[in-house]
Amino acid sequence: MMAPATLSQSRRTRRTPFSPRVEAAGVKSYTVYNHMLLATVFESVEADYTHLKQHVQIWDVGCERQVSIQGPDAARLVQLMTVRDIGGMIEGQCFYAPLVDTDGGMINDPVGLKLADDHYWLSLADSDVLLWARGLATGLGLDVATHEPDVWPLAIQGPKSDDLMAQVFGESVRDIRFFRFERLSFNNHPFVIARSGWSKQGGFEIYVDREDLALELWDALWEAGQPFEIRPGCPNHIERIEGGLLSYGNDMTRAHNPLECGLDRYCHVDRPIEALGRDAVAKVMAEGTRRLVRGLKIDGGPVPPTTDEWSVQVNGKHVGGVTSSAYSPDLASTVAFAMMDKGFWDVGLAVKVVLPDGTMRDGSVSDLPFI
Amino acid sequence: MMAPATLSQSRRTRRTPFSPRVEAAGVKSYTVYNHMLLATVFESVEADYTHLKQHVQIWDVGCERQVSIQGPDAARLVQLMTVRDIGGMIEGQCFYAPLVDTDGGMINDPVGLKLADDHYWLSLADSDVLLWARGLATGLGLDVATHEPDVWPLAIQGPKSDDLMAQVFGESVRDIRFFRFERLSFNNHPFVIARSGWSKQGGFEIYVDREDLALELWDALWEAGQPFEIRPGCPNHIERIEGGLLSYGNDMTRAHNPLECGLDRYCHVDRPIEALGRDAVAKVMAEGTRRLVRGLKIDGGPVPPTTDEWSVQVNGKHVGGVTSSAYSPDLASTVAFAMMDKGFWDVGLAVKVVLPDGTMRDGSVSDLPFI
Repeated sequence: MMAPATLSQSRRTRRTPFSPRVEAAGVKSYTVYNHMLLATVFESVEADYTHLKQHVQIWDVGCERQVSIQGPDAARLVQLMTVRDIGGMIEGQCFYAPLVDTDGGMINDPVGLKLADDHYWLSLADSDVLLWARGLATGLGLDVATHEPDVWPLAIQGPKSDDLMAQVFGESVRDIRFFRFERLSFNNHPFVIARSGWSKQGGFEIYVDREDLALELWDALWEAGQPFEIRPGCPNHIERIEGGLLSYGNDMTRAHNPLECGLDRYCHVDRPIEALGRDAVAKVMAEGTRRLVRGLKIDGGPVPPTTDEWSVQVNGKHVGGVTSSAYSPDLASTVAFAMMDKGFWDVGLAVKVVLPDGTMRDGSVSDLPFI
Repeated sequence: MMAPATLSQSRRTRRTPFSPRVEAAGVKSYTVYNHMLLATVFESVEADYTHLKQHVQIWDVGCERQVSIQGPDAARLVQLMTVRDIGGMIEGQCFYAPLVDTDGGMINDPVGLKLADDHYWLSLADSDVLLWARGLATGLGLDVATHEPDVWPLAIQGPKSDDLMAQVFGESVRDIRFFRFERLSFNNHPFVIARSGWSKQGGFEIYVDREDLALELWDALWEAGQPFEIRPGCPNHIERIEGGLLSYGNDMTRAHNPLECGLDRYCHVDRPIEALGRDAVAKVMAEGTRRLVRGLKIDGGPVPPTTDEWSVQVNGKHVGGVTSSAYSPDLASTVAFAMMDKGFWDVGLAVKVVLPDGTMRDGSVSDLPFI
């Protein structure tokens, strides 16, 4: 067995202002996300998982790049890009927004932030939405400015998040509602702080727009977190599957429409919204989707990483594909996402899963989330 | 000293059809490029470099994703995106094309291939140009189809490339001129083969559009390459700097215009082309550029990887930034690219370079390429 390949580093796979702390904490693995480093493992995926569920972690998610959309046509451009009706959104609100192409394909699934009536941020999954937004704005001649601002989100996640954040930002941080944001000060600078984050353990995302304060903020959170057993962390592969958090590029791509991804409740195609993907999604909705992302439990212990789709079979027939999987210590089972053909969505349905080495595993269909 | 961080693998950082051979060959490091794996080291960067200059290598550059632009408005859309005049391009021609935004910023620097009057491929550097092209086409209502086809380039590079390719594709491959392509058959399938590639050692890029033939083709090239001492390889960090090959994301970004990148000869802004970036680039050309990429030689032996820009100074004043660097065994010097302020472009100008640990190195400005 050869050593696993390392990640070469260069300016193109951009560092964040927090990278020195991530490195000092002994990061063991990275991925690259929006042309930027994203840690994936500190102690081990399993140890990181157990800790996240019990304590509190600080995550460098600077790779959640923002697309800033500002100007008289900002709301129009955001609405063109998403099939979610953004008409009722208020300032201070975060909104999960499937970005959908004219053919219904998923372009990204950011969390939008309404900063002002004429100013939005889209906090991105891994694709260059700035080019999409700017291409549309240029082609349509919209009165809007689009750019990638110098903002690097820092997440505090885990059940002790409120207690930690209150130490640094004051007690009022506890009052921030889920998917709302407030501006709270650290070192006399007001940071946008949202109750959000890519785990199901609760927590906040701090939109750090001052590079010069980044390490000071990290260190203040770190110090205040000592009584709470704070550790450095990152989006956890096991926890996110347990929690039903799909990953753009892994579990959904441009080849999938939002209904296949289980995002029906964000598809307001029955309303008179001017969304590029409205007609395509409405058509799928009328006809019924032919595929749907479902949970799978896979028997027989840990599995290798899902780097290619694994065939899911019933009676020897291909009926779907596993897109992500991880062994869950808490559920004592491998949990997975699979894009399943129509007719094979029932909870408990027995399936076979073909692993990369050709071996077959027994499995069964599950609802999402697993926990 | 901790072990260098590994690269986590998942479906999002896509494999290529050649990945099994790359792994079997013992790849030591990867980067991620267009959401796909790209090897960066096999034996060592230095050993790979020495071999590349003497023999022949096979490179999995499947990450050079294509944007296919096809339809009645295809030529118009390509011309909108680049400031290079594509009017005179003929079928079978490759063309290096700076993609430029309305503000003059570089979006990408692909090699375009004219497949037919109404069909182009853009063979990309690392950004999601499909979203840019499709956003423009959607916004302008162009009659054109854009997509990312299943094409994975495979490069044969090094001085023995012609001899090797002739063994597999026949003697006519030798007649392909630089930056031209032909369709030549392997296993009864015609592959687009261009005399091109991301080294200065000569060679070809095979646009592999048949996943089922990919490993068979690799193996045939590998077997035929034994007398030529073929090895697996990848774009080599030292060789590309010596050769003056800029890397998008490393040495140029959206913050740079093509004149700053030394791409004057591809900027036909004095012609009546309908390019989005024409006015912005014409303005810079009229006023004169304030920055320019230059070579730097840095004394004092090997340097660490350039992961952040290194300040270049003259008399204690910041006059530029190093964006990529490598120690060249053949030149017995560190060679680097630096974006230098106006007034500091003269060959031989003595400068100081500030390394990440704060130490200062002596250096001098050089023309590009170094070799």
